[in-house]
Amino acid sequence: MSGTEEIEAFQTVAWVGDAARGSLRLIDQTRLPTEFLEIDCHDAPTVWEAIKLLRVRGAPAIGVAAGYGAVIGARSQGLADAATVRRALGEATAYLRTSRPTAVNLFWALDRMDATAAAAGAGVSSGNGSALLDRLLTEAHAIADEDRAMCRAIGRHGAELVVPGEGILTHCNAGGLATSDYGTALAVIFSAHEQGKHVRVYADETRPLLQGARLTAWELQRRGVPVTLICDNMAAQVMKEGKVQKVVVGADRIAANGDTANKIGTYGVAVLARAHGIPFYVAAPSSTFDLAIPDGAAIPIEQRESHEVTHGFGRQTAPSGVDVYNPAFDVTPAELIAGIITEKGVIRPVNHETIREVIGN
Amino acid sequence: MSGTEEIEAFQTVAWVGDAARGSLRLIDQTRLPTEFLEIDCHDAPTVWEAIKLLRVRGAPAIGVAAGYGAVIGARSQGLADAATVRRALGEATAYLRTSRPTAVNLFWALDRMDATAAAAGAGVSSGNGSALLDRLLTEAHAIADEDRAMCRAIGRHGAELVVPGEGILTHCNAGGLATSDYGTALAVIFSAHEQGKHVRVYADETRPLLQGARLTAWELQRRGVPVTLICDNMAAQVMKEGKVQKVVVGADRIAANGDTANKIGTYGVAVLARAHGIPFYVAAPSSTFDLAIPDGAAIPIEQRESHEVTHGFGRQTAPSGVDVYNPAFDVTPAELIAGIITEKGVIRPVNHETIREVIGN
Repeated sequence: MSGTEEIEAFQTVAWVGDAARGSLRLIDQTRLPTEFLEIDCHDAPTVWEAIKLLRVRGAPAIGVAAGYGAVIGARSQGLADAATVRRALGEATAYLRTSRPTAVNLFWALDRMDATAAAAGAGVSSGNGSALLDRLLTEAHAIADEDRAMCRAIGRHGAELVVPGEGILTHCNAGGLATSDYGTALAVIFSAHEQGKHVRVYADETRPLLQGARLTAWELQRRGVPVTLICDNMAAQVMKEGKVQKVVVGADRIAANGDTANKIGTYGVAVLARAHGIPFYVAAPSSTFDLAIPDGAAIPIEQRESHEVTHGFGRQTAPSGVDVYNPAFDVTPAELIAGIITEKGVIRPVNHETIREVIGN
Repeated sequence: MSGTEEIEAFQTVAWVGDAARGSLRLIDQTRLPTEFLEIDCHDAPTVWEAIKLLRVRGAPAIGVAAGYGAVIGARSQGLADAATVRRALGEATAYLRTSRPTAVNLFWALDRMDATAAAAGAGVSSGNGSALLDRLLTEAHAIADEDRAMCRAIGRHGAELVVPGEGILTHCNAGGLATSDYGTALAVIFSAHEQGKHVRVYADETRPLLQGARLTAWELQRRGVPVTLICDNMAAQVMKEGKVQKVVVGADRIAANGDTANKIGTYGVAVLARAHGIPFYVAAPSSTFDLAIPDGAAIPIEQRESHEVTHGFGRQTAPSGVDVYNPAFDVTPAELIAGIITEKGVIRPVNHETIREVIGN
């Protein structure tokens, strides 16, 4: 694949069909970049598994998938009446919440689906299960539509920060595959690229699951943006050589003071960027903020299976029985973050007051 | 494998047989940790390939292998007379020099073999090829013996720095598999462990070739030292959590001012250690110093194939045709190094004067 070939569109998360019989179609991201495989989810366990196994990943995309997953779960006990749909929805959202602990968008989207059913209580209480289900699908579509608009707005705000000819380092995947459209961190890059700013991206491969190698490099190549793949431990050297003028990453959850949970390794990149005088930006929608938690110490960090580290890609690469530490995320303290690029504008400097000003309430 | 089972000895590099018909036996480290396979080298190309493909790796072990490889090369044109052996030796050492560009021990060992032949000129000039070959094998054995003594001395000096109960982070493999005995960085750990200091090692897996996962974790487990394997990008988080009180790594080449070339990622670890107030030590024999180069800027950095990054685990993990940057080494500036542990003692602070004092001339 080269940058000159035609750019093919892809849909990370999509709904196919009507509310009663339709399904959630996902790109199985665990198969990329060597296979492009879409799966159709017809029941909540398949959605739960897709989130758990990272077939769909990236905080915004997880939120969109969870919204559609709630619709699928809500019809699982039939459409006899609204109470049945409401009960099934409640069970489905409680269940989907258990798939991954860190991404706040998951809980945000499921809360929103629950609230929709609650708000619809008066209008559909007399028994119309189908009407309630339609209402839920409309809400799930709204989550997806808002996500698309959010991506474009983040791209627009972020591209203003990009100087022509810059090298930009990113970690993990905060691209189209992490959202329903254009990405968050990568939206900044795609938008700058479309404006002819001639950026080059340095993509950390992002062990253990290689989202940078498998997904970010694939997306950028597919859209014709120059990209150089590096191992995570090469970021410091690339910075030292002056190849990188900016770091832009996504976020899984941002505390009220700006402390940011993102893929493991992000914190290290932020420390290295600071040591090299390179500004470090986070790009994330306002739904990623969790103003209820004061700072990063309160963000739960998912620990994942040692198998991901010792048997990463179909081959055993560490001795049997070795102890492994495998946190999925780390927290970058706000003081290392030059700015947070949201759909509502760029927050900088990053602190409790500037966040409250832009994100609100 | 657990820490309680019997510790099995292994020989990373060994000579089997006499000078005229013997061979160099190596553990094929590319097969570890799932297979333990030894190969016998009977000609110089096999030795060259073993160094090139990292079947044998680690600066001291490369030096020892190169010494024995020179013996094998020296007999390749027969033992008719000393001139023939000397000519064959010259061709073999020139050839073996082309296998890898960065490890100074390779050149140091080959220079020493050349010098041995030159010094033997008077005594064996009248035609005794076998006598010269025996002299060469004696020299290669001396390199290996000195390497073993060096490892023990480094272990002894380094263990004095270790506080009981410490967590020690290491990168790549500077262990027994990188030397003919006990390692350099790992010698410090093995020695502290033998003294009952109850250390725990955090081993960076060390992409792209995973020497930390495949070799360091294997060696430590085999000798019963508690070890936790992490991905390279988790080092910052492990430091932030207070799990690590010291970093100890090996070196491939050290400049006159103390700037240290070592496996890619080492520089980043040094920056992270500094940011977390954790002392960063290098453990290396005096043969690793290259006093002819003033600082790190003059150290050539080997660039390796993109395939190592894109197809690292036997499976393609990045899109076809993606650009890759894959430097094999980086240079850690002396000011980030708390001390260099050599067989002659610990150099600290690290600067031109203290190095000259300990390493000499």
